[in-house]
Amino acid sequence: MNQSMIGKVYEDIDKNFEKYVKELQQYLSQPSISATGEGIEETAQMTAEYIRRLGSKDVRLVRFKDGHPIVYGTITSKNAEKTLVLYNMYDVQPPEPLEEWISPPFAARIVDGKVIARGAVNTKGPVMGMFKGLESYLNVYGEFPVNLVFIIEGEEELGSPHIPEFVKMYEDDLKKCDAVYMHGNDQEEDDTPAVHLGVKGLLYFEMEAEMGSRDVHGSLATIVPNPVWKLVWVLKTMKDESNRILIKGIYDDVRPPTNEEIEMVKDIAARKDLQKFKEFLGIKEFRGDLQGLDLYIENYFKPTLNIDGIVSGYTGPGTKTLVPAKARIKMDIRLVPNMTSEKVWTLVQNHMKEHGFNDIKLIKRSAYEWARAPPSSHIAKSVINSLKQLGYNPLVYPTLEGSAPFYIFSKPPLNLPFVLAGFAYGFLAHAPNEYIKITQYRESIRLMATILENFKSS
Amino acid sequence: MNQSMIGKVYEDIDKNFEKYVKELQQYLSQPSISATGEGIEETAQMTAEYIRRLGSKDVRLVRFKDGHPIVYGTITSKNAEKTLVLYNMYDVQPPEPLEEWISPPFAARIVDGKVIARGAVNTKGPVMGMFKGLESYLNVYGEFPVNLVFIIEGEEELGSPHIPEFVKMYEDDLKKCDAVYMHGNDQEEDDTPAVHLGVKGLLYFEMEAEMGSRDVHGSLATIVPNPVWKLVWVLKTMKDESNRILIKGIYDDVRPPTNEEIEMVKDIAARKDLQKFKEFLGIKEFRGDLQGLDLYIENYFKPTLNIDGIVSGYTGPGTKTLVPAKARIKMDIRLVPNMTSEKVWTLVQNHMKEHGFNDIKLIKRSAYEWARAPPSSHIAKSVINSLKQLGYNPLVYPTLEGSAPFYIFSKPPLNLPFVLAGFAYGFLAHAPNEYIKITQYRESIRLMATILENFKSS
Repeated sequence: MNQSMIGKVYEDIDKNFEKYVKELQQYLSQPSISATGEGIEETAQMTAEYIRRLGSKDVRLVRFKDGHPIVYGTITSKNAEKTLVLYNMYDVQPPEPLEEWISPPFAARIVDGKVIARGAVNTKGPVMGMFKGLESYLNVYGEFPVNLVFIIEGEEELGSPHIPEFVKMYEDDLKKCDAVYMHGNDQEEDDTPAVHLGVKGLLYFEMEAEMGSRDVHGSLATIVPNPVWKLVWVLKTMKDESNRILIKGIYDDVRPPTNEEIEMVKDIAARKDLQKFKEFLGIKEFRGDLQGLDLYIENYFKPTLNIDGIVSGYTGPGTKTLVPAKARIKMDIRLVPNMTSEKVWTLVQNHMKEHGFNDIKLIKRSAYEWARAPPSSHIAKSVINSLKQLGYNPLVYPTLEGSAPFYIFSKPPLNLPFVLAGFAYGFLAHAPNEYIKITQYRESIRLMATILENFKSS
Repeated sequence: MNQSMIGKVYEDIDKNFEKYVKELQQYLSQPSISATGEGIEETAQMTAEYIRRLGSKDVRLVRFKDGHPIVYGTITSKNAEKTLVLYNMYDVQPPEPLEEWISPPFAARIVDGKVIARGAVNTKGPVMGMFKGLESYLNVYGEFPVNLVFIIEGEEELGSPHIPEFVKMYEDDLKKCDAVYMHGNDQEEDDTPAVHLGVKGLLYFEMEAEMGSRDVHGSLATIVPNPVWKLVWVLKTMKDESNRILIKGIYDDVRPPTNEEIEMVKDIAARKDLQKFKEFLGIKEFRGDLQGLDLYIENYFKPTLNIDGIVSGYTGPGTKTLVPAKARIKMDIRLVPNMTSEKVWTLVQNHMKEHGFNDIKLIKRSAYEWARAPPSSHIAKSVINSLKQLGYNPLVYPTLEGSAPFYIFSKPPLNLPFVLAGFAYGFLAHAPNEYIKITQYRESIRLMATILENFKSS
């Protein structure tokens, strides 16, 4: 890395920082609520304009039937050998409950060194950090070291329903890219930045037991079948008290963690305060007897069969006896490498068949695949090294515990490694008084410029 | 039985029947909604006045702190050897939904030979049938053949909260009585009258599993315990797939049906249309493989562990992943002779302790004991024989499947056999367009007079 040149970029950032903060406030003042559509079009236009100003000649709003546009633009550089996709989002969650904000959610006021606004963390703050990092880089170098592809969507908070269609539309162009980076909001409470090298997959389904056409008086439980008991007898075949999933074949494709992954997890285990983590989760003990490294292995490398909700019968105050006609349960299985949602769905269906639960209705609600960037991939190394150069010792996670549609980039036909990192403390995302510290915003800008430099030479 | 004398009573009924129907309409026109208190005082006064007119000199409204009065009155007869308690209720359920009534609920209009009103079946219709049966008997004989004790409460639809206190207040008087009869509404759809020689007991309780102080993101199910799984593992220790309850000791006190009871059940089995019963219940099959006599034995003589309701986590449309902090389940156990709610509650608590489920909160919500009148008791024989004399072949049930606080009369210190029978098709109780057929009302009146005659000489 050219230390003096990147030093000049940092100087440029400092010189322009007051203006950059104003632009952040402008961007955050513009509502872009995907759930209601409020300000979506204006924000998409604004976002496209930022990309145009960075030199993109083809930036456009890609529109879908019944959807919010994806802002798509490319910048080609002379002599660039690599192409980096900058995936991000311009939409935000609704700001309610409004009365809990200490400053109006779209006023983007600075209070105590923080810009307070819906989107400050998730993720218009980081998006502006990305743009400004690119701008200062351009100010100093006059051109980018790699080709850039911008994909800034307006439906992330709705589950990214049009990204698959978009990828199909631009498949030929995207296939030529080298990696996807999301400049995000993964800072820990103590300001340590986090890097996520993947996400888990998800299979979300429901089971419905319907034993009659109407609820009947509870006294008839002697002779009328009860759907909740039926679900109990189904569920007990699915997971035992040691939390082992009993669905045949479910662990067959689960690959053990690599040495590289184990090292990552050891680092996390050594640095994470488990007592604080438990307090944050509101629990006294972790599930089962999980502790030490096992806890992390379970958390990052094992599938889980979770119950998200169950409902049946009378659940109000006092007493009312009935035999419910119907019981419904919502469940999810998190998928780790190398599981696929399709195969797992088949295993669930087979399980029900083999146990004779033919009267239970199975409903598949959604599916995401897992995604992983190898720690040895250029983008992973660039991001981690950039953080180190900025003086941080990042927590590198092999994966998020959660799921997101990043697999659409990571799986065939694109096969692009996807990395998520950035500055901005994520806890208040979706909540009132979401904020980004002014200091975090500056680090966010510096990080983007540094990654660019590192990715070129990685 | 004096055939000619009872024949004269029937003649008197016919002579006065037009007036009796008017009085029924008056009684039903007076609202008496225990849930809201509407018309309760007026109806209690009206009810007391009917008893006074039959010759009671001590009829009174027994009042409780925060409750509706019990109308209590006695009539002593010269030479009477026995005393019959006539338990009943003057309160009704709220009439809503009003828009579904074809005639206003307190208009008590006659439509197609039916008096349509809230309370027509449950049970102001039968109460008036009782009064008019007694009136015609008195018209002919000039006196009653047995002493009578009236207990007409205004809180049955609220769970009879003050009956225990009332029984304690009048314990010395009530101990001298011989039996309790409720002139009710237990007619089958085909007009066959039913006699119930008892009720089951009930233990209603909740289990609450609380594993954390707040719901957390579903991705953390790897390490955060899930209270629904916990309930599944509790429940599977409580009942197996063959519906056998696994709580140790639960069957110890269950006495097998007597020969007399088996005979009753055989008669029911021979006469009941199971296909129609299934259609009424809205089910395709009975629980397990129950059929034939086993079905009835299960229904009347076995305890059941029922799930009335369960709720946890997210149960709305679509997908939302979370690990719920809390899960609640409502359950009831029906008690048959010779179980007691106290012992069963101890068994449930022991079960939880022995299985190490110390983190599950157990909450007892309510308890009723079972009650049974021996088929050989005077009151049971009188009621059954009276129905036969009136030309019916009644269905005699050893017990209701349901529960009611009749045990307060049947258990020590009173030890009075309690029988429930009567005319009026019960299905529309609590529903719009509740009705009593004019012909049923006449039979109700005739039955009351006949029971009086039979009980004297039984």
